[in-house]
Amino acid sequence: MVVGSFSQDELDEIYAFAIDLGRKAGDLLMSRVEQRMDGGEGNAQNFEEKDNSVDIVTQTDEDVEVFISTALKNKYPSHKFLGEETYAKGQSRDYLIDEQPTWCIDPLDGTVNYTHLFPMFCISIGFIVQHKPVIGVIYAPFQDQLFSSCVGRGAWLNEKRRLPLIQKPSIPPMPPNAPSQCVFSCEWGKDRRDIPDGNMHRKIESFVNMAAETSGRGGKGGMVHGMRSLGSATLDLAYTAMGSFDIWWEGGCWEWDVAAGIAILLEAGGLVTTANPPANVDSDPIEDVRLGSRLYLAIRPAGPSATETGRQSQERTVREVWRRVRNLEYSRPGA
Amino acid sequence: MVVGSFSQDELDEIYAFAIDLGRKAGDLLMSRVEQRMDGGEGNAQNFEEKDNSVDIVTQTDEDVEVFISTALKNKYPSHKFLGEETYAKGQSRDYLIDEQPTWCIDPLDGTVNYTHLFPMFCISIGFIVQHKPVIGVIYAPFQDQLFSSCVGRGAWLNEKRRLPLIQKPSIPPMPPNAPSQCVFSCEWGKDRRDIPDGNMHRKIESFVNMAAETSGRGGKGGMVHGMRSLGSATLDLAYTAMGSFDIWWEGGCWEWDVAAGIAILLEAGGLVTTANPPANVDSDPIEDVRLGSRLYLAIRPAGPSATETGRQSQERTVREVWRRVRNLEYSRPGA
Repeated sequence: MVVGSFSQDELDEIYAFAIDLGRKAGDLLMSRVEQRMDGGEGNAQNFEEKDNSVDIVTQTDEDVEVFISTALKNKYPSHKFLGEETYAKGQSRDYLIDEQPTWCIDPLDGTVNYTHLFPMFCISIGFIVQHKPVIGVIYAPFQDQLFSSCVGRGAWLNEKRRLPLIQKPSIPPMPPNAPSQCVFSCEWGKDRRDIPDGNMHRKIESFVNMAAETSGRGGKGGMVHGMRSLGSATLDLAYTAMGSFDIWWEGGCWEWDVAAGIAILLEAGGLVTTANPPANVDSDPIEDVRLGSRLYLAIRPAGPSATETGRQSQERTVREVWRRVRNLEYSRPGA
Repeated sequence: MVVGSFSQDELDEIYAFAIDLGRKAGDLLMSRVEQRMDGGEGNAQNFEEKDNSVDIVTQTDEDVEVFISTALKNKYPSHKFLGEETYAKGQSRDYLIDEQPTWCIDPLDGTVNYTHLFPMFCISIGFIVQHKPVIGVIYAPFQDQLFSSCVGRGAWLNEKRRLPLIQKPSIPPMPPNAPSQCVFSCEWGKDRRDIPDGNMHRKIESFVNMAAETSGRGGKGGMVHGMRSLGSATLDLAYTAMGSFDIWWEGGCWEWDVAAGIAILLEAGGLVTTANPPANVDSDPIEDVRLGSRLYLAIRPAGPSATETGRQSQERTVREVWRRVRNLEYSRPGA
């Protein structure tokens, strides 16, 4: 595949570099975890607050970002680099991705999990060409789970299991009665303001609709198979690419949280669009996700059934989710 | 330590057998996962429904239970055996644990996760003497995480890292402003009936209180660091023993879901009591958990601070949770 000015050979070489970099950055992260378990620095879970007491950054976030950005700037000086901590330091959260080949990085996704040593934290490395995430590497070092993809090369777990995990005899279609029988991944997030009809309450109303029995909530009951919250948007997307989560719906996270995950999910055959239902959920087009939109709805890879293509079953699921969720209001500061 | 008629040597031998059995049962579970990934039987996620469409049992549940019960009955014919699927088949859910040494097993906890290949599923093996869980083995084979404990021998991850993970220079106390700065683990569960003031709505009201900003919810806002839902009560308890989750609050699960996890958490230094707040949350005694109560509140291991013992900081946290949660109504069928 040719993307922009990159040949497949060039992308393959960049992909190999990104995987190696992800593993090395993960090793750095785990060395900090082991120091903490061995009684070294950081036991007090030192962190600084950003927007509020649940929005935090640790010294490890910053050190891992410097490690990754230094490696990338040395290897690919002509590429642009955007990392979560770069944004935070710059006091600006404008959307900075343009036509240039750009690395979009979260050095430590799941910072709260990391400070508490809950294993769901990871490195996230996305490479974007002409606004499209074309390479993704996610590495969760505590569990030694590496998710990766490059356009034209498929998506993989630990470089040996193709994603989604079930490929044979064919990738399962979405359930005929979705969202019933689906695992629904969602996050409470950092916006905890107790404002009537604010984002927190809109999220909760949406979650309850998805969870309630089919006859409940005035017909909006989704009776999903399970509700899951991991505290890492990046890993939510990785598990959606695996086929473990059927639906991920989220507002409020940023492009560095999702760039690598979207690359992997799309290459695995998933669908990613906006969290917010359009005016007409039955017929309005299902648009491709905008990376900087902060509003995401992802559906796992799906194969054909006797009556539908995989894409048709994904689109049917998108509309059934939109019927049950509220619009969320997330904008970019200053935008 | 001597427990009932068992010397420490006897318990040590039983413990070693239970760890070996847990690993072998986990290998059996993973062989089924690999068959499914390789296109063999079970790709269609075959399962039977129990109480409703999210309460399911698979052939794997039953096969793993037979494997475990056969091994235990051969090795320890005088011990009683209770497994989740034994209960389900018997059409009775009376509480069957008595004075006899009893194995209480969940062959596959996180069945929904297993059917969707989300890695948070596990084997749970608890050994109970005189109503106390004294040995616990939990094995999550997809992640190769083995949690284990025996009274007098500590609690361990993969037999090499003592739990909780942070021991040095001392186990961290509970935060002074808990539940703020805590990771709160909770589950939506299987009871999705949309009944006003029913269990689902009481759970959700409690979750929202724990999540909301401190000034919110009429003073009940808990502003927890994170809300996590894994879909496995057993692994929730294991991660609480690790220190990754600070608080786990749940109603509706059963003794086979929690027996091993409670053994491990107590041996690690955690506290387990009831989910339901007593009449006077400030002063009523904090009673030890009853295994068959279906109502659980667990607090992670905690060390002393300058002003409190670890136990004092745990009890303070219990009371702060009780202030924010609703009573749940779960009884035993026929009880």
